[in-house]
Amino acid sequence: MKSEKISDAVVRRMPVYLRYLNELQNRDVMTVSSQELGQNLDLNPAQIRKDLAYFGDFGRKGIGYDVAYLIEKIRQILNLDQEISVALVGAGNLGQALSNYNMYLKDNMKIVAVFDIAEAKIGSQINYLTVQPITELPETVRNLGIRIGIITVPHWEAQRVADQLVEAGIQAILNFAPVILKVPAEVRVHAADFTTDLLSLAYYLDQGKESSNES
Amino acid sequence: MKSEKISDAVVRRMPVYLRYLNELQNRDVMTVSSQELGQNLDLNPAQIRKDLAYFGDFGRKGIGYDVAYLIEKIRQILNLDQEISVALVGAGNLGQALSNYNMYLKDNMKIVAVFDIAEAKIGSQINYLTVQPITELPETVRNLGIRIGIITVPHWEAQRVADQLVEAGIQAILNFAPVILKVPAEVRVHAADFTTDLLSLAYYLDQGKESSNES
Repeated sequence: MKSEKISDAVVRRMPVYLRYLNELQNRDVMTVSSQELGQNLDLNPAQIRKDLAYFGDFGRKGIGYDVAYLIEKIRQILNLDQEISVALVGAGNLGQALSNYNMYLKDNMKIVAVFDIAEAKIGSQINYLTVQPITELPETVRNLGIRIGIITVPHWEAQRVADQLVEAGIQAILNFAPVILKVPAEVRVHAADFTTDLLSLAYYLDQGKESSNES
Repeated sequence: MKSEKISDAVVRRMPVYLRYLNELQNRDVMTVSSQELGQNLDLNPAQIRKDLAYFGDFGRKGIGYDVAYLIEKIRQILNLDQEISVALVGAGNLGQALSNYNMYLKDNMKIVAVFDIAEAKIGSQINYLTVQPITELPETVRNLGIRIGIITVPHWEAQRVADQLVEAGIQAILNFAPVILKVPAEVRVHAADFTTDLLSLAYYLDQGKESSNES
């Protein structure tokens, strides 16, 4: 099923679908059409049908998608039918804020360890986790089967932390530091630099102005 | 130039190009090829050439792109040749972390005001800004010409804050709360929910495993 190369953009939309489907399930909604999905997620329904069709034939004409079945399928696609342990490196404001999200990370994904370099932070508690020295990273990654790392250290420490995560056997990194990390090809890095989001928003400011002038 | 509909994915890559070009300029590099850009940004060079060609004919065959010229052009594309004021709503850990990024927001974009609902936080200082009560939002937006809002409140407060930002005349919102916001069509919302990034990373875990089994 995963033999075809799926674009990153498609993969990134899967959790968005999943989140909305979970909402629907909480409201006891049984089926949903691509039109309704599109309307609520600000996406073209044809795009949604195409995205989901990469992974299988989930919808039924005239009825739409079975919510529970689609949730199960997307969870399988995203490997969320297995437990995924996450390490966070950097126990500053951002690290603390992210570990508060831990409760939203249902779906078997959990931050299970927090690391820092600064002596002052080691031993402190963040959301039931004790901040560990970075020197314990390799052992903890091995013991807890951690596969994903989150980097929330300052930009000048990010590459060194990435090297340590890779060395410890991490397979994927979510990087919040505003630098481009160099990692081996088999390690997947997503940049979560919020400045990119913010700068790209600026593009739409003038568009809005132009179109309101035109119309 | 902006009459053609440019996909959001293309727009979102522009700040990534800009960041790397700024790095090159700091290292006194004068020209760069799409190959080199691609190698450093983990993108297909043809994709980069296509992205930039949407906005104009910036490259020269056999020479590549003039770094300074391309920086200037991308800044124009993203409206960063004008000052863009940003308001942040939610002075918790995440809000504090984000305002620490303010120094990376060169390019005329700046967080100029911070708001919160909680009495306890109002009047406190975050990165030289005094946290204001949300009731002052409309006046401050008007006085400072704020056009973008960042939402870093808990998810159950996010929609109400979004409504207040829209009411106050904000044109674009970066939303960190893990909910889908309902806003008028002319307001642009980017979701910065990091759980989406994290969940989509999980997709690549098994792929890595599969390909290492295969090869």
